[in-house]
Amino acid sequence: MTLFKSLAVVGPGLIGSSILRRAREDRGIAQTLIAADSNAAVLDRVRELGLADIVTADLAEAAKADCVVLCVPVGAVEAVALEMLPYMKQGAILTDVASVRGQLGPRISTALPTGVSYVPAHPMAGTEHSGPDAGFATLFEDRWCLLIPPANTDTSAIHKIEQLWKQCGARTRVLEDAYHDQVCAIVSHLPHLLAFTICDTADNLSDELRADVLEYAASGFRDFTRIAASDPVMWRDIFLANREILLETLDRFTADTKGMADAIRAGDVESITDRIARGRQIRRTLIANRQA
Amino acid sequence: MTLFKSLAVVGPGLIGSSILRRAREDRGIAQTLIAADSNAAVLDRVRELGLADIVTADLAEAAKADCVVLCVPVGAVEAVALEMLPYMKQGAILTDVASVRGQLGPRISTALPTGVSYVPAHPMAGTEHSGPDAGFATLFEDRWCLLIPPANTDTSAIHKIEQLWKQCGARTRVLEDAYHDQVCAIVSHLPHLLAFTICDTADNLSDELRADVLEYAASGFRDFTRIAASDPVMWRDIFLANREILLETLDRFTADTKGMADAIRAGDVESITDRIARGRQIRRTLIANRQA
Ligand SMILES: NC(=O)c1ccc[n+]([C@@H]2O[C@H](COP(=O)([O-])OP(=O)(O)OC[C@H]3O[C@@H](n4cnc5c(N)ncnc54)[C@H](OP(=O)(O)O)[C@@H]3O)[C@@H](O)[C@H]2O)c1
Ligand SMILES: NC(=O)c1ccc[n+]([C@@H]2O[C@H](COP(=O)([O-])OP(=O)(O)OC[C@H]3O[C@@H](n4cnc5c(N)ncnc54)[C@H](OP(=O)(O)O)[C@@H]3O)[C@@H](O)[C@H]2O)c1
Repeated sequence: MTLFKSLAVVGPGLIGSSILRRAREDRGIAQTLIAADSNAAVLDRVRELGLADIVTADLAEAAKADCVVLCVPVGAVEAVALEMLPYMKQGAILTDVASVRGQLGPRISTALPTGVSYVPAHPMAGTEHSGPDAGFATLFEDRWCLLIPPANTDTSAIHKIEQLWKQCGARTRVLEDAYHDQVCAIVSHLPHLLAFTICDTADNLSDELRADVLEYAASGFRDFTRIAASDPVMWRDIFLANREILLETLDRFTADTKGMADAIRAGDVESITDRIARGRQIRRTLIANRQA
Repeated sequence: MTLFKSLAVVGPGLIGSSILRRAREDRGIAQTLIAADSNAAVLDRVRELGLADIVTADLAEAAKADCVVLCVPVGAVEAVALEMLPYMKQGAILTDVASVRGQLGPRISTALPTGVSYVPAHPMAGTEHSGPDAGFATLFEDRWCLLIPPANTDTSAIHKIEQLWKQCGARTRVLEDAYHDQVCAIVSHLPHLLAFTICDTADNLSDELRADVLEYAASGFRDFTRIAASDPVMWRDIFLANREILLETLDRFTADTKGMADAIRAGDVESITDRIARGRQIRRTLIANRQA
């Protein structure tokens, strides 16, 4: 028996096409795979790659699936959900993979028809690439997938979405919306903000200096730019959706930066060494956690 | 004919032992390899690894080499140079691999005996590890090595140090002290400062949140911690030696961060996207430069 009779992925880009690829390999996930997108070129490519049994631009048709996974950009999740919910079946599950919760939970919850569950799940995996060609079946292998179901969600629906992600290779955990956004602010959103900004700072240098910085980038700068290569629209949406928590996290970081700058300015050898040594300690813990 | 009759590496740690390993493989670099260090345990290990023909704690003995390469921490370079210079031979070359110039150039220049040249050269290569076991012969392969000779340095001495680094696999370029420090401030020192600081910020979180951040670190944070694992003393020295330029670079970065925060706070979609898109552009240039 398969987990779902039919599974629809809306927005078969990096994340969506990775789910489809996995479900194509593991036919225990769903009997019928459906891919839907607003972009005809994306749908053509999904057909060429043979990623789904049904490929459609019709969201109402895709909404008939037993499980609907929204893999559209964060900024589009709410609108696409509201468009599809009226067409969803009794007992069906709506989920999305958005990297930030913000107000998505309460907004979508209030629009749920009775008998339809909403169990969003954020896979902590990705690359800096996007589109249907960027996905791969092992993207979620050994990575975390954080479930953020609204309070009072049907537990069997939660179990099914946990099972979906386990069959995709991920480990799952259930968190609350605001806590999820706080963890992601420091794990992911702040590092991305800093990476984008250091690129800006480099970009603002005189032409000669900028050219040399790019030439000698290997000594640290390069590591920041990899994550700065990510999709601008996706990250703009994430920053806006997690605005409050992100800005508060940035404030703390800025205060810590000022602390380091003051220590350097004052030549406070002990304070500088102590601040640096904590980086090493954090790194060691990561290695112990098998996260590095 | 070898480039040097004898080559002495003082401080055979990550960088120093990598030079020795390379010179042991490519006997065109020097006939006799000498390793000197103030730490007896380091010398024992260098003997066990068979990295040099002569292994000594006596800096005056090592100073007799045709080329003396100081691979000690930035903060120790000046003192070790001043200790060794009186013992150096006519026609010999002193060099160091310090990651930052600061006042090293003028200070060491004034102490040079006639007939001895000073040609510091900073290899833009490294890892977060240190000590004689951390080195490897290919560390400098295809990496830049920046030469920063004081004005009026004998050009044949500059050529010899260029040749040394070419034989180590590196590409070389000559820069001025202050310009070198400015490039390194943004390429290397600022990224390290930010990486250390984000670890501090994580370390300051509540226990629960910190534990979760470390658990889910894979989504960006992890990339920052790799460079934060570097040696505290080395980086303390670098930050202090490049204090002015680094703090000025940090000020610009902080202003750019504030610009991004203001755009997020105001929901200025265009400005956010534009700032992020520049990260992508910088990354593309790096790939085109074969630096990514
Ligand atoms: N990338 C990551 O690292 C990562 C990690 C975890 C979670 N996520 C989440 O995954 C989601 C998708 O990200 P991704 O990286 O997979 O993006 P992606 O590769 O750009 O894929 C998104 C797909 O959605 C389509 N789309 C956009 N608006 C739509 C709409 N209104 N209706 C239907 N389809 C629409 C896009 O078409 P177009 O080509 O026309 O835009 C594209 O095919 C986001 O919510 C993101 O937060 C991403
Ligand atoms: N690591 C990088 O990424 C990198 C890149 C480019 C350039 N550099 C430069 O390379 C130099 C060395 O860095 P590294 O990473 O190779 O460090 P390392 O692995 O710690 O090696 C430094 C060696 O110098 C010894 N030492 C310390 N003080 C000394 C003194 N007063 N007299 C004699 N020996 C002394 C140390 O002994 P102990 O073990 O007793 O301390 C150690 O064996 C620094 O100037 C650094 O700026 C580093």
